[in-house]
Amino acid sequence: MSAPKKMKSSVVAVVNGLPGNMGKEIAQACLRRGLEVADVALTGANMPKDVTVEKDDGGSVTVNLVGPGSEAETQLKEALEKGRSEGKIVVAIDFTHPSAVNRNAELYVKLGLPFVMGTTGGDREALQKVVADNGLFALIAPNMCKQIVAFQAMMDTMASTYPGAFGGYGLEITESHQSGKADTSGTAKAMVEYLNKLKGGDPFDVEDIKKLRESEAQQAFGVPAEALEGHAWHTYTLKSGDGSVVFEFKHNVCGRRTYAEGVVDAVNFLAARINEGADKKLYDMIDVLKAGEMQ
Amino acid sequence: MSAPKKMKSSVVAVVNGLPGNMGKEIAQACLRRGLEVADVALTGANMPKDVTVEKDDGGSVTVNLVGPGSEAETQLKEALEKGRSEGKIVVAIDFTHPSAVNRNAELYVKLGLPFVMGTTGGDREALQKVVADNGLFALIAPNMCKQIVAFQAMMDTMASTYPGAFGGYGLEITESHQSGKADTSGTAKAMVEYLNKLKGGDPFDVEDIKKLRESEAQQAFGVPAEALEGHAWHTYTLKSGDGSVVFEFKHNVCGRRTYAEGVVDAVNFLAARINEGADKKLYDMIDVLKAGEMQ
Repeated sequence: MSAPKKMKSSVVAVVNGLPGNMGKEIAQACLRRGLEVADVALTGANMPKDVTVEKDDGGSVTVNLVGPGSEAETQLKEALEKGRSEGKIVVAIDFTHPSAVNRNAELYVKLGLPFVMGTTGGDREALQKVVADNGLFALIAPNMCKQIVAFQAMMDTMASTYPGAFGGYGLEITESHQSGKADTSGTAKAMVEYLNKLKGGDPFDVEDIKKLRESEAQQAFGVPAEALEGHAWHTYTLKSGDGSVVFEFKHNVCGRRTYAEGVVDAVNFLAARINEGADKKLYDMIDVLKAGEMQ
Repeated sequence: MSAPKKMKSSVVAVVNGLPGNMGKEIAQACLRRGLEVADVALTGANMPKDVTVEKDDGGSVTVNLVGPGSEAETQLKEALEKGRSEGKIVVAIDFTHPSAVNRNAELYVKLGLPFVMGTTGGDREALQKVVADNGLFALIAPNMCKQIVAFQAMMDTMASTYPGAFGGYGLEITESHQSGKADTSGTAKAMVEYLNKLKGGDPFDVEDIKKLRESEAQQAFGVPAEALEGHAWHTYTLKSGDGSVVFEFKHNVCGRRTYAEGVVDAVNFLAARINEGADKKLYDMIDVLKAGEMQ
């Protein structure tokens, strides 16, 4: 049944953002699902020279880490040329730092290296523009969990189709993330827009999202102890004016594996578009969902 | 601002299903929102001769109850002719019994009495057919809570747009209703269809919906003591294969007021269509939602 898949070129992933937690999780997911991990990756300042990624089934891959500077371009170029000379599709994955988003995107464009951008922040307009202007294959998505993306798309559609359907309802939002996350959940902020359309009346202010960052409150919210260092839990509650009707929507993620799986889906999707020479070049996770090319 | 609304004919509601709990709640909602309640209503066998509906702001309306038999037709016809002679739009509301659905619909068609059918059960195909064949204005909806209808429509859309987006996820459904409700929630059963499309794989069986009908289990589920005699609580849980991601959707209704409000929305919607002489005759709650003619 899977014979047609074998026809595709094999894929090499350059996992920029190693040796971060997300980078490691992604590199492992790539290996688990049959992608090759390039032996070089961009990283931040003051990082080790290399990192070893363990495979689930034993064995490991060592990746040389290249900090900011002129070496970055040279080494990425080498990795790209090496992969291409072997008939492979090379795709960069970016889970680095908000301050590196635009610099890295410009480098990918300069090298003609297709990329999946999972890093949030930076100048998003400039990011979209540099890719669009240069016709590079890229997939940009602030949230790589495909189910959350589907749920967001659904709420967006409901809000546009039935604005005011929850007229007179009150709204409460609580989100919990590992203590290292300083800002408010981007997903929760996006949901506020849709929920405000649904309820009408006085808009809910994103400042009123309840952020949990202390372990005691997080455990009271239901987060298991072993997930305190990496989780993304969200609860949205809509309550009718008289209190007789309550709607509650939750999406609770422990760890980073589901995002890493989504990244591999995104890389495979982009590689398939490159392989077929698609006209469209710039994608997001909705395109991946619609294509149904998911595991 | 509300001047254009005054141009509409006023509306008389025949609240068939009095003196049941739902009928009373609807009659009260009609009076609260400025509709007239007809002084006659169809009821079941062995019911009292009349019922008094209390208004929220004092005062009351007495309604004569007509059991099954030849009197039903005569009295409904009188109510219809009386309302029309006064330039009013008369609409029947049906919250009776599954066994009366088709008989009542045929009577409404015979009299040319537009109706809102909230009673579930009976032969649904025959119900739709008799209305369509005769071009009578009618609104048929097994669930009158507009927010639940919007949520169902959203899940339906998500399932059609992104089938398999929740591939590998497990599903659990728990619903709680007052102990008098013998069958499984129709809303939960409808949701199973959408959720099965989303998760793919082995389909979830409606037989596996967990039904709570005992007060102890209901209160453990969170139902307040004062809502034990009338509530509709639903929780749908989707969990990823590795357990790291959980989605939970809840819609919890205490009492019957939100349904009664939805019925009044439906009656007002249908009266507006009659008033403007719309080409389309047969509607459901999605039409009401889309029209945005809601309170």
